[in-house]
Amino acid sequence: MQETLERDRSAPGKSEVFVALVHYPVVNKRGDVVTTSVTNLDVHDIARSARTYGVAGYYVVTPTPSMQWFVRRVIRFWSQGAGAEYNITRRDAFTLIRLAGSLEEAVEDIERRRGRRPVLVATSARPAPDSIAFADLRRRIEAGAGDFLLILGTGWGLDSSLFARADLRLAPIEPQRSYNHLSVRAALAIVLDRLLGSR
Amino acid sequence: MQETLERDRSAPGKSEVFVALVHYPVVNKRGDVVTTSVTNLDVHDIARSARTYGVAGYYVVTPTPSMQWFVRRVIRFWSQGAGAEYNITRRDAFTLIRLAGSLEEAVEDIERRRGRRPVLVATSARPAPDSIAFADLRRRIEAGAGDFLLILGTGWGLDSSLFARADLRLAPIEPQRSYNHLSVRAALAIVLDRLLGSR
Repeated sequence: MQETLERDRSAPGKSEVFVALVHYPVVNKRGDVVTTSVTNLDVHDIARSARTYGVAGYYVVTPTPSMQWFVRRVIRFWSQGAGAEYNITRRDAFTLIRLAGSLEEAVEDIERRRGRRPVLVATSARPAPDSIAFADLRRRIEAGAGDFLLILGTGWGLDSSLFARADLRLAPIEPQRSYNHLSVRAALAIVLDRLLGSR
Repeated sequence: MQETLERDRSAPGKSEVFVALVHYPVVNKRGDVVTTSVTNLDVHDIARSARTYGVAGYYVVTPTPSMQWFVRRVIRFWSQGAGAEYNITRRDAFTLIRLAGSLEEAVEDIERRRGRRPVLVATSARPAPDSIAFADLRRRIEAGAGDFLLILGTGWGLDSSLFARADLRLAPIEPQRSYNHLSVRAALAIVLDRLLGSR
C-alpha cells in the first residue's frame, strides 16, 4: 500500500469517517438510473457539516466532465480566490472536498490515504431488513473498527447497484414517520450528528 | 383569544414546535445589523425538515416586500402550480410555510392558532452562560410545557435584540469543536432531530 505524502487530517490509529455524495448512478422519481447535476449548495453545506463533525474527506462523485469543471471552479474560488479572503471558515471546510469520477475512484483514494479499504455504508430513506442501526454504527466508529465511507445519493436516492456493493446499509433517519423527505443536505447533517455528535 | 378557523395541524393538548427563520434583524460578519435575502433553498430544505419532524408551522420572517413577493411565488408554484403536480411531497411540506413581516407577527399568528403565546427559543452557534441544554428542552416539549418557537438567524446569526426578547437560548450544537460553521439548513435539521427525533 502506498503512503500518501500530502497533508492529511486523518489519524492512523482510529476510525476515520468519509462522505461521498453520489450523482451517478442514482434514480429519479420513476426509478430510472440517471446522472444528477452537482448543486452549489450541496458542495457548500456538506463541506461545512463534514468539517464541523471532523470528517476526513468529502468526495463529490460525478462522471460528467462539465460538472467536474464546475466543482473545480467552486473549490478554487473558495480555496484561493476572492471567496477565500471573504470567508476564511469556508476555505477551511473546502479543504475536505475531493472530486471523484466514480464511487470506486473515491474508495481507491481513501485506500491510498489510509492504507486500507474503508467500510462502505450506503444510506437510504427506505427501510431494509438488514440495515444497521445508528447506535451500532456509532459504536463501531468509536471502537476504531476500520474507516467508514458514508454514501449518500442525490435525486431520488442511490441506485440498487450501489446497495449491492456496500458493506452496510444504514437505517433510515425517521422510518416511523408518515413523511420522510429530507434534503440530502439535512439528512447528512443528521447522520453526522447521530454518528459523531457529542453526547 | 381568537380561534382560527383554518385547518391546523397542531393539537391542543400537547406541546407544538414552530420554527422561525429570521432575515431581519440579523448581523453580518462585521456585526452590523442587516436584512438578508430569502434563499429558495432555505424555504425548501427547512420546510422538508419541519414536515418530517412534525413541526406545526414554519415562519419565513422578512420585512422586505420584494422578498415576501418572492416567497409567495415559490409557495404558489409548489402548492398549486406545476411544482405541486411534479412533486406531491414538496406540496405537503409547503403547507407549513407562513410569511411574517417580523418575529412579533409570527408570535401573534401562533397565539391566534393556539390560544397561547409560545415560549421563544433563540438559537446561536456561540455559547452563552444561561443557555438551555438540548436534553432539557426536549424534556419540556415531551412534558407538554407550552408551545415552542425555535428562532434561527440567517447571515451571521440573530441580532442581540432578539436574544434579549427570547425566553430561552438553546445551547450551540457542537460547542467543543474547533470548527462550528454549519449552514442554517443543516443546523435546523440537527436541532429538530435532537429535540423531536426518535430515540
